[in-house]
Amino acid sequence: MGFNLSNFLDSKSKNRKMNQFQDLNHLDGLSISVVSANLYGNKRDDLVMFYFREGANFASIYTQSKILSENIKWNLSQKTQKIFSLLINARNANSFTGEHGYKSMQQIADLISKELTEKQKEDEEIPLIIKPKNIIFGCTGTIGEKFPVEKIKFKISDLVKNIKYTQNKYLWMKAALGIMTTDKQPKISMEKCEIGQTPIKIYGIAKGSGMIHPNMATTLGYIFTDAEISNDILKKLLKKNVENTFNAISCDGDTSTNDMISIFSTGKAKNSTIKSIHDKKIKSFDISLNKVLLNLAKRVVADGEGASKFITINILNTKTEEDAKKIAFSIANSPLVKTAITGEDPNWGRVIMAIGKSGVDINLQKLSLKFGDIVIVSKGKVHNEYKENEAVDYMKSTNIVISVEVGNGNKSFTAYTMNLTKEYIDINADYRS
Amino acid sequence: MGFNLSNFLDSKSKNRKMNQFQDLNHLDGLSISVVSANLYGNKRDDLVMFYFREGANFASIYTQSKILSENIKWNLSQKTQKIFSLLINARNANSFTGEHGYKSMQQIADLISKELTEKQKEDEEIPLIIKPKNIIFGCTGTIGEKFPVEKIKFKISDLVKNIKYTQNKYLWMKAALGIMTTDKQPKISMEKCEIGQTPIKIYGIAKGSGMIHPNMATTLGYIFTDAEISNDILKKLLKKNVENTFNAISCDGDTSTNDMISIFSTGKAKNSTIKSIHDKKIKSFDISLNKVLLNLAKRVVADGEGASKFITINILNTKTEEDAKKIAFSIANSPLVKTAITGEDPNWGRVIMAIGKSGVDINLQKLSLKFGDIVIVSKGKVHNEYKENEAVDYMKSTNIVISVEVGNGNKSFTAYTMNLTKEYIDINADYRS
Repeated sequence: MGFNLSNFLDSKSKNRKMNQFQDLNHLDGLSISVVSANLYGNKRDDLVMFYFREGANFASIYTQSKILSENIKWNLSQKTQKIFSLLINARNANSFTGEHGYKSMQQIADLISKELTEKQKEDEEIPLIIKPKNIIFGCTGTIGEKFPVEKIKFKISDLVKNIKYTQNKYLWMKAALGIMTTDKQPKISMEKCEIGQTPIKIYGIAKGSGMIHPNMATTLGYIFTDAEISNDILKKLLKKNVENTFNAISCDGDTSTNDMISIFSTGKAKNSTIKSIHDKKIKSFDISLNKVLLNLAKRVVADGEGASKFITINILNTKTEEDAKKIAFSIANSPLVKTAITGEDPNWGRVIMAIGKSGVDINLQKLSLKFGDIVIVSKGKVHNEYKENEAVDYMKSTNIVISVEVGNGNKSFTAYTMNLTKEYIDINADYRS
Repeated sequence: MGFNLSNFLDSKSKNRKMNQFQDLNHLDGLSISVVSANLYGNKRDDLVMFYFREGANFASIYTQSKILSENIKWNLSQKTQKIFSLLINARNANSFTGEHGYKSMQQIADLISKELTEKQKEDEEIPLIIKPKNIIFGCTGTIGEKFPVEKIKFKISDLVKNIKYTQNKYLWMKAALGIMTTDKQPKISMEKCEIGQTPIKIYGIAKGSGMIHPNMATTLGYIFTDAEISNDILKKLLKKNVENTFNAISCDGDTSTNDMISIFSTGKAKNSTIKSIHDKKIKSFDISLNKVLLNLAKRVVADGEGASKFITINILNTKTEEDAKKIAFSIANSPLVKTAITGEDPNWGRVIMAIGKSGVDINLQKLSLKFGDIVIVSKGKVHNEYKENEAVDYMKSTNIVISVEVGNGNKSFTAYTMNLTKEYIDINADYRS
């Protein structure tokens, strides 16, 4: 299954997207190197290295799970101001792998730092010494399987040898393909913006919460920019913009031990210094970063396992944003709502049920509900002009928008999800083989 | 689909069950009357009346949803010490039906109280006057459809006319069938016990959380006893025993606007007075009530839509019972765990994932995990003797037991659920027709 994302991107953004991808090329200060470490038996690339020759400022957000994979533990324990390399492998999550898993990260970081320091000596006028703590990792794949540390170590020198100081769109595509697990499509997004007069690029790749091989739901998202922004401000910007993008999507309500969203800034654009996220000069960057993240997040949902419909859930005018989120995810995670949409049934009673079970106090007299532009419930009553046959037609769309007006405040939240289909069961009930 | 409950009841309780149903008959002080009110187009019984000729003490527990059906609102607003009748209809939930729905309850209660008062005059030596507030309702079915008040009112005199003062097991079966929606099987349970020297009966019927027609997940459970127990003690007993029975099951994590579990005590057994739930004389009743509720709750899960496997989740040795519940339901509601079990895949990584996302602090060094008797994880490490092929064999069972040892306290909780299958999607994606 899977369906074309362009179905739910409006034609304007579709065109913009196509034009943009023509420009997807070099991002100054960054190199990409991709190989197969034989993790899938040599059938595909599975190891992706990002190398920042002058280092990059960075910020990361990790899974909320109480059980962390070993790479996330490694990343959290390295105290450094600059990252020189991000290494991502598919096929093995390095989760529930204990001491061996953590030591594997240590060994690989040792090797990468040594090889990259050698490369610095060869290529740079003023070579830098790269330390293991300057390396972080993204892992995605089966949980509890021994981490294939030797296979990966064996390929580090190839990765470093492959490093070129310019990238084209094919290399970006290779990177997006290399981190995929059960994703049907690679996920890339890019925006351009300015900081002051300086043109800035923001590129991003992601992998979806498709189960791998078929084990875990991992979302990985990596954003790269040539802007010069401090770690502190990167952190604030990332946190703020993840809230209504990657934190607004739900595929099956499950959470991985490996989820990771990071942003890296090479500083090569040489923009003027940003001292605060309230600085007006950062506004264009802020908006563009949100677009990149939202675009990737939507692609993750659209490529959700077995998905045939993309669902947008707008919750409007609640007392708090927390309330709006609770209602939005109660609807987004309801198997009854998600199967009704698969059945193209405007079974709005199930949405009411999901609102009720969210735990948020509801004044029925103020509650309104729309499917697309069709008003179904208005101020607690079935709308006079509601015609089920119109709603039946609407449910045939690929892109379903559910809007709930709660009417007791001025906060809102939008969540994105997909429908629940038999293909989801097929994919996830399939024995690992 | 659906499968035979006897597969997961051990042979001892199977035999006990068969013997018991031979005895399922008259419960003193209670009458049952069942008719078709044409709510399903005369194809089946859909209206069930329980009549307590001398009144019954009672207690009820209602849905946690913030949106309540009109019958639940009616039940909550009637302040009375005795219930004389419980009327249950299938096919229409009387939810999101507004003023008309609530007034319908009033009208039907008026009519029933009038008819039953007439019956008292005819049949009783000392006739009682029955008031509308002595009547409560259970409704289950489509949400948001106009409540069929006239069809139901039309059948009240038939219901009252049908009243016989003794019941046999066929009448109990008719009642259990009459409240069904998409349930595949009627759900009945019975136990015998003693209060002091007095023999006591506890009978119960339930309907499952199958979607109706196919709209809402409603669980209804009604327990009847001839014991004499005060409203206050009934409430305490019901609350306590629902916790590890009906509150320990999860089919799809959804919650209805109509859920209702009630207990009625006719007092005809004339047992000695119970003044406190700590009274030793109540112990046998307490245990038997739990058995009746657990048996019904398990039947609800076993008959869950599309279920082919019954899943028991034991969480052991947590700091608090709340922690154990959070972990149990995080596993029980995980689509990834539920589909792995459908695929008969011992994909224990998904259980680890669900433990992690529960939000409970976990000390990995103390965590152990078993499927049935097979130790998979022992104190945070994959067990030395774990052989996947043994686990693969185990997963072919109809009855899957997952046990998690958390190891940082002495609390525990057991949850029950079923697997997630393509049939679930079929049933719930099917357009209402």
